[in-house]
Amino acid sequence: MKNLSELQAFLESGYQHYLPHVSIDCAIFGYHEGEMKLLLLKNKLIPNWCLPGGFIKREEGLDEAAGRISKERTGIKNLFLKQFKTFGDPDRNGYRSFDQKKFFKLTGIHIPTDSWLLDRTTSIGFYAITDISNATPEADMLSSECAWFPIDQIPKLAFDHNEMVKEALLTMRVHLYHYPIGKNMLPEKFTLKEIHLFYETMLGKTLNPSNFPNKLISLGLLEKLDEKRSIGPHRAPTFYKFNTKVYSKALKEGLVLA
Amino acid sequence: MKNLSELQAFLESGYQHYLPHVSIDCAIFGYHEGEMKLLLLKNKLIPNWCLPGGFIKREEGLDEAAGRISKERTGIKNLFLKQFKTFGDPDRNGYRSFDQKKFFKLTGIHIPTDSWLLDRTTSIGFYAITDISNATPEADMLSSECAWFPIDQIPKLAFDHNEMVKEALLTMRVHLYHYPIGKNMLPEKFTLKEIHLFYETMLGKTLNPSNFPNKLISLGLLEKLDEKRSIGPHRAPTFYKFNTKVYSKALKEGLVLA
Repeated sequence: MKNLSELQAFLESGYQHYLPHVSIDCAIFGYHEGEMKLLLLKNKLIPNWCLPGGFIKREEGLDEAAGRISKERTGIKNLFLKQFKTFGDPDRNGYRSFDQKKFFKLTGIHIPTDSWLLDRTTSIGFYAITDISNATPEADMLSSECAWFPIDQIPKLAFDHNEMVKEALLTMRVHLYHYPIGKNMLPEKFTLKEIHLFYETMLGKTLNPSNFPNKLISLGLLEKLDEKRSIGPHRAPTFYKFNTKVYSKALKEGLVLA
Repeated sequence: MKNLSELQAFLESGYQHYLPHVSIDCAIFGYHEGEMKLLLLKNKLIPNWCLPGGFIKREEGLDEAAGRISKERTGIKNLFLKQFKTFGDPDRNGYRSFDQKKFFKLTGIHIPTDSWLLDRTTSIGFYAITDISNATPEADMLSSECAWFPIDQIPKLAFDHNEMVKEALLTMRVHLYHYPIGKNMLPEKFTLKEIHLFYETMLGKTLNPSNFPNKLISLGLLEKLDEKRSIGPHRAPTFYKFNTKVYSKALKEGLVLA
Protein backbone atom coordinates (compact mmCIF):
# COMPACT_ATOMS: atom_id res chain seq x y z
CA MET A 1 0.00 0.00 0.00
CA LYS A 2 1.36 3.35 -1.05
CA ASN A 3 -1.28 5.84 0.10
CA LEU A 4 -4.33 6.39 2.30
CA SER A 5 -6.95 5.63 -0.31
CA GLU A 6 -5.29 2.28 -0.98
CA LEU A 7 -5.32 1.63 2.76
CA GLN A 8 -9.02 2.47 3.00
CA ALA A 9 -9.86 0.15 0.10
CA PHE A 10 -7.78 -2.57 1.76
CA LEU A 11 -9.71 -2.26 5.04
CA GLU A 12 -13.08 -2.28 3.31
CA SER A 13 -12.71 -4.80 0.54
CA GLY A 14 -9.19 -6.21 0.75
CA TYR A 15 -10.72 -9.70 1.05
CA GLN A 16 -11.62 -9.50 -2.63
CA HIS A 17 -7.93 -9.40 -3.54
CA TYR A 18 -6.42 -11.16 -0.56
CA LEU A 19 -7.29 -14.45 1.12
CA PRO A 20 -9.03 -13.69 4.42
CA HIS A 21 -8.20 -15.65 7.61
CA VAL A 22 -4.65 -16.41 6.48
CA SER A 23 -1.60 -14.19 6.69
CA ILE A 24 2.17 -14.61 6.48
CA ASP A 25 4.82 -13.47 8.94
CA CYS A 26 8.52 -13.55 8.15
CA ALA A 27 11.40 -14.04 10.58
CA ILE A 28 14.26 -12.70 8.47
CA PHE A 29 17.62 -13.66 9.94
CA GLY A 30 20.67 -11.74 8.79
CA TYR A 31 24.25 -12.99 8.97
CA HIS A 32 27.46 -11.07 8.60
CA GLU A 33 30.97 -12.00 9.75
CA GLY A 34 30.03 -13.92 12.87
CA GLU A 35 26.93 -11.94 13.82
CA MET A 36 23.29 -12.99 13.54
CA LYS A 37 20.48 -10.45 13.56
CA LEU A 38 16.71 -10.36 13.08
CA LEU A 39 14.80 -7.82 10.99
CA LEU A 40 12.01 -6.05 12.90
CA LEU A 41 9.42 -3.45 12.04
CA LYS A 42 8.16 -0.60 14.23
CA ASN A 43 4.46 -0.21 13.51
CA LYS A 44 3.25 3.31 14.30
CA LEU A 45 0.07 1.99 15.94
CA ILE A 46 1.49 -0.39 18.50
CA PRO A 47 4.15 0.20 21.12
CA ASN A 48 6.14 -2.99 20.40
CA TRP A 49 8.23 -4.02 17.42
CA CYS A 50 6.96 -6.87 15.25
CA LEU A 51 7.89 -9.20 12.41
CA PRO A 52 7.28 -8.09 8.82
CA GLY A 53 4.12 -9.71 7.48
CA GLY A 54 1.23 -9.42 5.10
CA PHE A 55 -1.65 -11.14 3.34
CA ILE A 56 -1.69 -13.58 0.43
CA LYS A 57 -3.09 -12.43 -2.89
CA ARG A 58 -5.97 -14.54 -4.18
CA GLU A 59 -3.95 -15.82 -7.14
CA GLU A 60 -0.63 -16.11 -5.32
CA GLY A 61 1.11 -19.23 -3.97
CA LEU A 62 2.38 -19.22 -0.37
CA ASP A 63 6.10 -19.15 -1.28
CA GLU A 64 5.39 -16.41 -3.77
CA ALA A 65 3.59 -14.30 -1.17
CA ALA A 66 6.40 -14.80 1.38
CA GLY A 67 8.90 -13.82 -1.32
CA ARG A 68 6.99 -10.65 -2.13
CA ILE A 69 6.55 -9.66 1.53
CA SER A 70 10.20 -10.24 2.42
CA LYS A 71 11.42 -8.48 -0.73
CA GLU A 72 9.37 -5.40 0.18
CA ARG A 73 11.22 -5.14 3.52
CA THR A 74 14.74 -6.15 2.42
CA GLY A 75 14.97 -5.24 -1.25
CA ILE A 76 16.20 -8.80 -1.95
CA LYS A 77 14.56 -11.03 -4.53
CA ASN A 78 14.66 -14.82 -4.09
CA LEU A 79 15.61 -14.92 -0.43
CA PHE A 80 16.22 -18.37 1.05
CA LEU A 81 12.76 -18.89 2.59
CA LYS A 82 11.31 -21.85 4.43
CA GLN A 83 8.07 -22.36 6.32
CA PHE A 84 8.54 -23.09 9.99
CA LYS A 85 5.05 -23.23 11.52
CA THR A 86 1.51 -21.91 11.18
CA PHE A 87 0.10 -20.03 14.17
CA GLY A 88 -3.60 -20.11 14.83
CA ASP A 89 -4.67 -19.35 18.39
CA PRO A 90 -8.29 -18.18 18.06
CA ASP A 91 -7.41 -14.82 19.65
CA ARG A 92 -4.06 -14.10 18.03
CA ASN A 93 -5.27 -11.56 15.43
CA GLY A 94 -3.10 -8.47 15.84
CA TYR A 95 -5.48 -6.09 14.10
CA ARG A 96 -7.95 -6.54 16.92
CA SER A 97 -5.50 -5.00 19.36
CA PHE A 98 -4.81 -1.92 17.22
CA ASP A 99 -5.52 1.35 18.99
CA GLN A 100 -8.45 2.49 16.84
CA LYS A 101 -8.25 6.12 18.00
CA LYS A 102 -4.56 6.27 17.18
CA PHE A 103 -5.26 4.64 13.83
CA PHE A 104 -7.87 7.30 13.05
CA LYS A 105 -5.57 10.10 14.16
CA LEU A 106 -2.80 8.75 11.92
CA THR A 107 -4.85 7.89 8.86
CA GLY A 108 -8.23 9.64 9.15
CA ILE A 109 -9.79 6.23 8.57
CA HIS A 110 -12.15 4.31 10.85
CA ILE A 111 -11.65 0.56 10.70
CA PRO A 112 -15.19 -0.73 10.07
CA THR A 113 -16.28 -2.93 12.99
CA ASP A 114 -17.21 -5.66 10.51
CA SER A 115 -13.91 -5.38 8.62
CA TRP A 116 -12.59 -8.73 7.38
CA LEU A 117 -9.29 -7.72 9.03
CA LEU A 118 -10.75 -8.08 12.51
CA ASP A 119 -11.80 -11.69 11.97
CA ARG A 120 -9.76 -14.63 13.19
CA THR A 121 -6.49 -14.91 11.30
CA THR A 122 -4.00 -17.76 11.16
CA SER A 123 -0.48 -16.87 10.15
CA ILE A 124 1.98 -18.99 8.22
CA GLY A 125 5.50 -18.38 9.53
CA PHE A 126 8.42 -18.34 7.10
CA TYR A 127 12.01 -17.82 8.08
CA ALA A 128 14.59 -16.35 5.73
CA ILE A 129 18.36 -16.09 5.89
CA THR A 130 20.34 -13.40 4.15
CA ASP A 131 23.71 -11.71 4.23
CA ILE A 132 22.98 -8.48 6.11
CA SER A 133 25.12 -6.50 3.69
CA ASN A 134 22.80 -7.44 0.80
CA ALA A 135 19.68 -6.04 2.47
CA THR A 136 18.23 -2.53 2.44
CA PRO A 137 15.63 -2.50 5.24
CA GLU A 138 12.59 -0.42 4.33
CA ALA A 139 9.62 0.47 6.53
CA ASP A 140 6.08 0.28 5.13
CA MET A 141 3.35 2.92 5.23
CA LEU A 142 2.20 2.08 8.75
CA SER A 143 5.70 1.72 10.16
CA SER A 144 8.26 4.25 11.27
CA GLU A 145 11.32 1.99 11.21
CA CYS A 146 12.65 -1.29 9.87
CA ALA A 147 15.88 -2.38 11.55
CA TRP A 148 18.21 -5.26 12.43
CA PHE A 149 18.35 -6.45 16.06
CA PRO A 150 21.13 -8.70 17.40
CA ILE A 151 19.56 -12.12 18.01
CA ASP A 152 20.34 -11.98 21.75
CA GLN A 153 18.71 -8.55 22.09
CA ILE A 154 15.22 -9.14 20.71
CA PRO A 155 12.77 -6.92 22.66
CA LYS A 156 9.27 -7.92 23.75
CA LEU A 157 7.43 -8.08 20.42
CA ALA A 158 3.78 -7.46 19.56
CA PHE A 159 1.14 -10.23 19.34
CA ASP A 160 2.58 -13.78 19.40
CA HIS A 161 5.71 -12.72 17.55
CA ASN A 162 8.19 -13.66 20.30
CA GLU A 163 6.86 -17.21 20.12
CA MET A 164 7.20 -17.07 16.34
CA VAL A 165 10.85 -16.00 16.60
CA LYS A 166 11.53 -18.81 19.08
CA GLU A 167 9.97 -21.39 16.74
CA ALA A 168 11.69 -19.92 13.68
CA LEU A 169 15.06 -20.13 15.40
CA LEU A 170 14.41 -23.70 16.56
CA THR A 171 13.39 -24.83 13.07
CA MET A 172 16.19 -22.96 11.31
CA ARG A 173 18.71 -24.59 13.66
CA VAL A 174 17.25 -28.05 13.02
CA HIS A 175 17.37 -27.34 9.28
CA LEU A 176 21.05 -26.38 9.51
CA TYR A 177 21.75 -30.05 10.24
CA HIS A 178 19.66 -31.32 7.34
CA TYR A 179 19.76 -28.80 4.54
CA PRO A 180 22.74 -26.96 3.13
CA ILE A 181 22.24 -23.32 4.06
CA GLY A 182 24.86 -20.69 3.53
CA LYS A 183 25.27 -20.33 -0.20
CA ASN A 184 24.22 -16.68 -0.21
CA MET A 185 25.61 -15.91 3.22
CA LEU A 186 29.26 -16.54 2.41
CA PRO A 187 31.41 -15.15 -0.39
CA GLU A 188 31.65 -17.44 -3.42
CA LYS A 189 35.07 -18.64 -2.26
CA PHE A 190 35.57 -19.06 1.48
CA THR A 191 37.90 -20.69 3.98
CA LEU A 192 36.92 -23.53 6.30
CA LYS A 193 37.28 -21.08 9.19
CA GLU A 194 34.66 -18.82 7.61
CA ILE A 195 32.09 -21.57 7.08
CA HIS A 196 32.77 -22.89 10.57
CA LEU A 197 32.09 -19.43 12.02
CA PHE A 198 28.89 -19.19 9.97
CA TYR A 199 27.52 -22.46 11.37
CA GLU A 200 28.57 -21.67 14.94
CA THR A 201 26.90 -18.25 14.76
CA MET A 202 23.65 -19.57 13.31
CA LEU A 203 23.48 -22.53 15.71
CA GLY A 204 24.43 -20.37 18.68
CA LYS A 205 26.93 -22.95 19.93
CA THR A 206 30.50 -24.14 19.45
CA LEU A 207 31.23 -26.97 17.06
CA ASN A 208 34.20 -29.30 16.97
CA PRO A 209 36.41 -27.38 14.49
CA SER A 210 37.92 -30.41 12.76
CA ASN A 211 34.82 -32.55 12.79
CA PHE A 212 32.40 -30.09 11.36
CA PRO A 213 33.73 -28.83 8.05
CA ASN A 214 35.04 -32.36 7.35
CA LYS A 215 31.46 -33.63 7.37
CA LEU A 216 30.55 -31.05 4.71
CA ILE A 217 33.53 -32.13 2.64
CA SER A 218 32.83 -35.85 2.99
CA LEU A 219 29.24 -35.29 1.80
CA GLY A 220 30.64 -33.61 -1.31
CA LEU A 221 29.02 -30.28 -0.42
CA LEU A 222 32.33 -28.42 -0.33
CA GLU A 223 34.90 -28.41 -3.11
CA LYS A 224 38.53 -27.57 -2.44
CA LEU A 225 39.86 -24.94 -4.81
CA ASP A 226 43.36 -24.71 -6.19
CA GLU A 227 43.72 -21.30 -4.62
CA LYS A 228 44.73 -19.94 -1.23
CA ARG A 229 44.18 -16.72 0.61
CA SER A 230 47.45 -15.07 1.50
CA ILE A 231 47.09 -13.63 4.97
CA GLY A 232 50.73 -13.59 6.10
CA PRO A 233 53.93 -15.62 6.07
CA HIS A 234 53.16 -19.36 6.43
CA ARG A 235 49.44 -18.53 6.71
CA ALA A 236 47.51 -19.23 3.55
CA PRO A 237 44.25 -21.09 4.16
CA THR A 238 42.80 -22.90 1.16
CA PHE A 239 39.64 -21.64 -0.47
CA TYR A 240 36.54 -23.82 -0.81
CA LYS A 241 33.27 -23.37 -2.66
CA PHE A 242 29.91 -25.12 -2.60
CA ASN A 243 29.35 -27.88 -5.14
CA THR A 244 26.22 -26.53 -6.82
CA LYS A 245 24.88 -29.93 -7.91
CA VAL A 246 25.27 -31.64 -4.52
CA TYR A 247 23.97 -28.47 -2.82
CA SER A 248 20.77 -28.33 -4.90
CA LYS A 249 20.10 -32.05 -4.47
CA ALA A 250 20.63 -31.84 -0.69
CA LEU A 251 18.37 -28.81 -0.49
CA LYS A 252 15.60 -30.84 -2.08
CA GLU A 253 16.10 -34.18 -0.39
CA GLY A 254 17.66 -33.33 2.94
CA LEU A 255 20.75 -34.88 4.51
CA VAL A 256 22.20 -35.60 7.94
CA LEU A 257 25.00 -33.21 8.79
CA ALA A 258 25.61 -33.80 12.46
CA MET B 1 -21.12 -35.06 10.59
CA LYS B 2 -23.46 -37.87 11.38
CA ASN B 3 -26.31 -37.48 8.90
CA LEU B 4 -27.43 -35.83 5.67
CA SER B 5 -29.10 -32.80 7.23
CA GLU B 6 -25.89 -32.01 9.09
CA LEU B 7 -24.02 -32.34 5.79
CA GLN B 8 -26.42 -29.97 4.05
CA ALA B 9 -26.06 -27.39 6.82
CA PHE B 10 -22.27 -27.76 6.61
CA LEU B 11 -22.26 -27.07 2.87
CA GLU B 12 -24.52 -24.06 3.19
CA SER B 13 -23.39 -22.34 6.33
CA GLY B 14 -20.47 -24.31 7.73
CA TYR B 15 -18.35 -21.15 7.54
CA GLN B 16 -20.31 -19.85 10.53
CA HIS B 17 -18.92 -22.62 12.71
CA TYR B 18 -15.68 -23.38 10.88
CA LEU B 19 -12.90 -21.09 9.67
CA PRO B 20 -13.16 -20.82 5.88
CA HIS B 21 -10.02 -20.94 3.66
CA VAL B 22 -8.08 -23.08 6.15
CA SER B 23 -8.26 -26.82 6.66
CA ILE B 24 -6.15 -29.49 8.32
CA ASP B 25 -4.82 -32.73 6.84
CA CYS B 26 -3.22 -35.45 8.94
CA ALA B 27 -0.54 -37.89 7.88
CA ILE B 28 -0.95 -40.52 10.59
CA PHE B 29 2.00 -42.90 10.67
CA GLY B 30 1.58 -46.18 12.47
CA TYR B 31 4.39 -48.32 13.85
CA HIS B 32 4.34 -51.89 15.01
CA GLU B 33 7.22 -54.34 15.42
CA GLY B 34 9.40 -53.08 12.60
CA GLU B 35 6.66 -52.00 10.23
CA MET B 36 5.60 -48.45 9.34
CA LYS B 37 2.22 -47.73 7.80
CA LEU B 38 0.10 -44.72 6.84
CA LEU B 39 -3.61 -44.28 7.55
CA LEU B 40 -5.68 -43.49 4.45
CA LEU B 41 -9.32 -42.81 3.76
CA LYS B 42 -11.38 -43.89 0.77
CA ASN B 43 -13.79 -41.06 -0.03
CA LYS B 44 -16.88 -42.31 -1.88
CA LEU B 45 -16.79 -39.37 -4.27
CA ILE B 46 -13.28 -39.60 -5.63
CA PRO B 47 -11.46 -42.56 -7.12
CA ASN B 48 -8.23 -42.12 -5.12
CA TRP B 49 -7.49 -42.59 -1.44
CA CYS B 50 -6.67 -39.50 0.60
CA LEU B 51 -5.41 -38.31 3.97
CA PRO B 52 -7.90 -37.78 6.80
CA GLY B 53 -8.69 -34.10 7.17
CA GLY B 54 -11.21 -31.50 8.22
CA PHE B 55 -11.92 -27.90 9.09
CA ILE B 56 -11.09 -25.87 12.19
CA LYS B 57 -13.91 -24.79 14.48
CA ARG B 58 -14.12 -21.04 14.99
CA GLU B 59 -13.21 -21.30 18.67
CA GLU B 60 -10.66 -24.11 18.31
CA GLY B 61 -6.86 -23.92 18.32
CA LEU B 62 -4.92 -25.65 15.53
CA ASP B 63 -3.47 -28.43 17.69
CA GLU B 64 -6.90 -29.00 19.19
CA ALA B 65 -8.50 -29.31 15.74
CA ALA B 66 -5.79 -31.72 14.55
CA GLY B 67 -6.30 -33.74 17.74
CA ARG B 68 -10.05 -33.93 17.15
CA ILE B 69 -9.70 -34.89 13.48
CA SER B 70 -7.11 -37.58 14.12
CA LYS B 71 -9.05 -38.95 17.09
CA GLU B 72 -12.15 -39.32 14.92
CA ARG B 73 -10.21 -41.58 12.51
CA THR B 74 -8.09 -43.54 15.00
CA GLY B 75 -10.04 -43.52 18.25
CA ILE B 76 -6.90 -42.29 20.02
CA LYS B 77 -6.88 -39.19 22.21
CA ASN B 78 -3.69 -37.16 22.57
CA LEU B 79 -1.79 -38.56 19.60
CA PHE B 80 1.77 -37.33 19.14
CA LEU B 81 1.00 -34.59 16.56
CA LYS B 82 3.32 -32.09 14.94
CA GLN B 83 2.83 -29.60 12.13
CA PHE B 84 5.00 -30.25 9.10
CA LYS B 85 3.94 -27.71 6.46
CA THR B 86 1.01 -25.63 5.22
CA PHE B 87 -0.07 -26.20 1.63
CA GLY B 88 -1.57 -23.35 -0.34
CA ASP B 89 -1.40 -23.64 -4.11
CA PRO B 90 -4.21 -21.41 -5.36
CA ASP B 91 -5.84 -24.38 -7.12
CA ARG B 92 -5.37 -27.12 -4.57
CA ASN B 93 -8.93 -27.14 -3.16
CA GLY B 94 -10.13 -30.73 -3.31
CA TYR B 95 -13.82 -29.92 -3.07
CA ARG B 96 -13.66 -28.25 -6.49
CA SER B 97 -12.79 -31.55 -8.10
CA PHE B 98 -15.65 -33.46 -6.50
CA ASP B 99 -17.92 -35.19 -8.97
CA GLN B 100 -21.06 -33.12 -8.33
CA LYS B 101 -23.40 -35.64 -10.01
CA LYS B 102 -21.99 -38.47 -7.94
CA PHE B 103 -22.29 -36.30 -4.85
CA PHE B 104 -25.95 -35.64 -5.59
CA LYS B 105 -26.61 -39.31 -6.30
CA LEU B 106 -25.00 -40.26 -3.00
CA THR B 107 -26.48 -37.55 -0.81
CA GLY B 108 -29.39 -35.96 -2.63
CA ILE B 109 -27.68 -32.63 -2.03
CA HIS B 110 -26.51 -30.09 -4.60
CA ILE B 111 -23.35 -28.26 -3.56
CA PRO B 112 -24.32 -24.59 -4.04
CA THR B 113 -22.00 -23.03 -6.64
CA ASP B 114 -21.24 -20.21 -4.22
CA SER B 115 -20.55 -22.62 -1.34
CA TRP B 116 -17.74 -21.47 0.93
CA LEU B 117 -16.29 -24.97 0.44
CA LEU B 118 -15.44 -24.30 -3.18
CA ASP B 119 -13.30 -21.24 -2.39
CA ARG B 120 -9.52 -21.38 -2.18
CA THR B 121 -8.41 -23.44 0.82
CA THR B 122 -4.99 -23.71 2.41
CA SER B 123 -4.32 -26.81 4.45
CA ILE B 124 -2.15 -27.14 7.51
CA GLY B 125 -0.40 -30.51 7.50
CA PHE B 126 0.10 -32.36 10.78
CA TYR B 127 1.82 -35.69 11.10
CA ALA B 128 1.08 -38.11 13.90
CA ILE B 129 2.79 -41.27 15.10
CA THR B 130 1.02 -44.06 16.89
CA ASP B 131 1.36 -47.70 17.71
CA ILE B 132 -0.85 -49.39 15.13
CA SER B 133 -2.23 -51.76 17.73
CA ASN B 134 -3.70 -48.83 19.68
CA ALA B 135 -5.74 -47.52 16.75
CA THR B 136 -9.23 -48.40 15.57
CA PRO B 137 -9.51 -46.92 12.05
CA GLU B 138 -12.97 -45.56 11.36
CA ALA B 139 -14.33 -44.16 8.10
CA ASP B 140 -16.44 -40.99 8.10
CA MET B 141 -19.84 -40.41 6.50
CA LEU B 142 -18.46 -39.70 3.04
CA SER B 143 -15.93 -42.54 3.11
CA SER B 144 -16.25 -46.23 2.55
CA GLU B 145 -12.97 -47.32 4.17
CA CYS B 146 -10.23 -46.20 6.51
CA ALA B 147 -7.16 -48.43 6.37
CA TRP B 148 -3.42 -48.75 6.98
CA PHE B 149 -1.08 -48.87 3.97
CA PRO B 150 2.57 -50.00 4.22
CA ILE B 151 4.72 -46.90 3.74
CA ASP B 152 6.36 -48.32 0.60
CA GLN B 153 2.97 -49.11 -0.97
CA ILE B 154 1.21 -45.74 -0.90
CA PRO B 155 -1.02 -45.49 -3.99
CA LYS B 156 -1.54 -42.36 -6.07
CA LEU B 157 -3.55 -40.17 -3.70
CA ALA B 158 -6.17 -37.50 -4.37
CA PHE B 159 -5.37 -33.76 -4.63
CA ASP B 160 -1.85 -32.81 -3.44
CA HIS B 161 -1.81 -35.54 -0.81
CA ASN B 162 1.16 -37.47 -2.22
CA GLU B 163 3.24 -34.31 -1.86
CA MET B 164 1.89 -33.94 1.68
CA VAL B 165 2.96 -37.48 2.58
CA LYS B 166 6.42 -36.86 1.11
CA GLU B 167 6.82 -33.68 3.16
CA ALA B 168 5.38 -35.30 6.30
CA LEU B 169 7.84 -38.16 6.00
CA LEU B 170 10.77 -35.80 5.40
CA THR B 171 9.87 -33.65 8.42
CA MET B 172 9.12 -36.60 10.69
CA ARG B 173 12.51 -38.09 9.79
CA VAL B 174 14.30 -34.81 10.49
CA HIS B 175 12.43 -34.58 13.81
CA LEU B 176 13.58 -38.10 14.77
CA TYR B 177 17.09 -36.65 15.05
CA HIS B 178 16.00 -33.68 17.16
CA TYR B 179 13.04 -34.70 19.27
CA PRO B 180 12.53 -37.84 21.31
CA ILE B 181 9.75 -39.75 19.57
CA GLY B 182 8.77 -43.23 20.51
CA LYS B 183 7.35 -43.03 23.99
CA ASN B 184 3.94 -44.34 22.92
CA MET B 185 5.28 -46.58 20.15
CA LEU B 186 7.26 -48.91 22.37
CA PRO B 187 6.21 -50.85 25.44
CA GLU B 188 7.03 -49.12 28.70
CA LYS B 189 10.09 -51.35 29.13
CA PHE B 190 12.03 -52.22 25.99
CA THR B 191 15.39 -53.60 24.87
CA LEU B 192 18.00 -51.63 22.93
CA LYS B 193 17.28 -53.90 19.98
CA GLU B 194 13.63 -52.85 20.01
CA ILE B 195 14.34 -49.12 20.08
CA HIS B 196 16.99 -49.57 17.40
CA LEU B 197 14.46 -51.31 15.18
CA PHE B 198 11.94 -48.54 15.82
CA TYR B 199 14.35 -45.82 14.68
CA GLU B 200 15.54 -47.81 11.65
CA THR B 201 11.97 -48.45 10.56
CA MET B 202 10.87 -44.84 10.95
CA LEU B 203 14.01 -43.45 9.27
CA GLY B 204 13.86 -46.04 6.50
CA LYS B 205 17.58 -46.73 6.76
CA THR B 206 20.11 -48.76 8.71
CA LEU B 207 21.84 -47.22 11.71
CA ASN B 208 25.10 -48.19 13.33
CA PRO B 209 23.74 -50.55 16.03
CA SER B 210 26.23 -49.66 18.75
CA ASN B 211 26.45 -45.97 17.97
CA PHE B 212 22.79 -45.22 17.93
CA PRO B 213 21.25 -46.38 21.19
CA ASN B 214 24.43 -45.22 22.97
CA LYS B 215 23.69 -41.68 21.90
CA LEU B 216 20.23 -41.92 23.49
CA ILE B 217 21.80 -43.26 26.69
CA SER B 218 24.53 -40.60 26.82
CA LEU B 219 21.88 -37.88 26.48
CA GLY B 220 20.10 -39.33 29.49
CA LEU B 221 16.99 -40.18 27.47
CA LEU B 222 17.19 -43.87 28.24
CA GLU B 223 17.45 -45.35 31.71
CA LYS B 224 18.82 -48.83 32.28
CA LEU B 225 16.52 -50.95 34.42
CA ASP B 226 17.55 -53.57 36.93
CA GLU B 227 15.61 -56.15 34.98
CA LYS B 228 16.27 -58.40 31.99
CA ARG B 229 14.12 -60.22 29.50
CA SER B 230 14.73 -63.92 29.58
CA ILE B 231 14.67 -65.19 26.01
CA GLY B 232 16.81 -68.29 26.36
CA PRO B 233 20.02 -69.62 27.90
CA HIS B 234 22.72 -66.92 27.96
CA ARG B 235 20.34 -64.53 26.22
CA ALA B 236 18.82 -61.96 28.54
CA PRO B 237 18.90 -58.42 27.13
CA THR B 238 18.52 -55.64 29.66
CA PHE B 239 15.36 -53.56 29.75
CA TYR B 240 15.44 -49.78 29.35
CA LYS B 241 12.81 -47.10 29.76
CA PHE B 242 12.56 -43.44 28.80
CA ASN B 243 13.54 -40.90 31.43
CA THR B 244 10.33 -38.89 31.57
CA LYS B 245 11.95 -35.64 32.71
CA VAL B 246 14.72 -35.63 30.08
CA TYR B 247 12.20 -36.77 27.46
CA SER B 248 9.75 -33.91 28.16
CA LYS B 249 12.51 -31.32 28.22
CA ALA B 250 13.97 -32.59 24.94
CA LEU B 251 10.52 -32.60 23.36
CA LYS B 252 10.18 -28.92 24.19
CA GLU B 253 13.68 -27.70 23.46
CA GLY B 254 15.01 -30.08 20.82
CA LEU B 255 18.32 -31.93 20.83
CA VAL B 256 20.88 -33.31 18.38
CA LEU B 257 20.67 -37.08 18.17
CA ALA B 258 22.80 -37.88 15.15
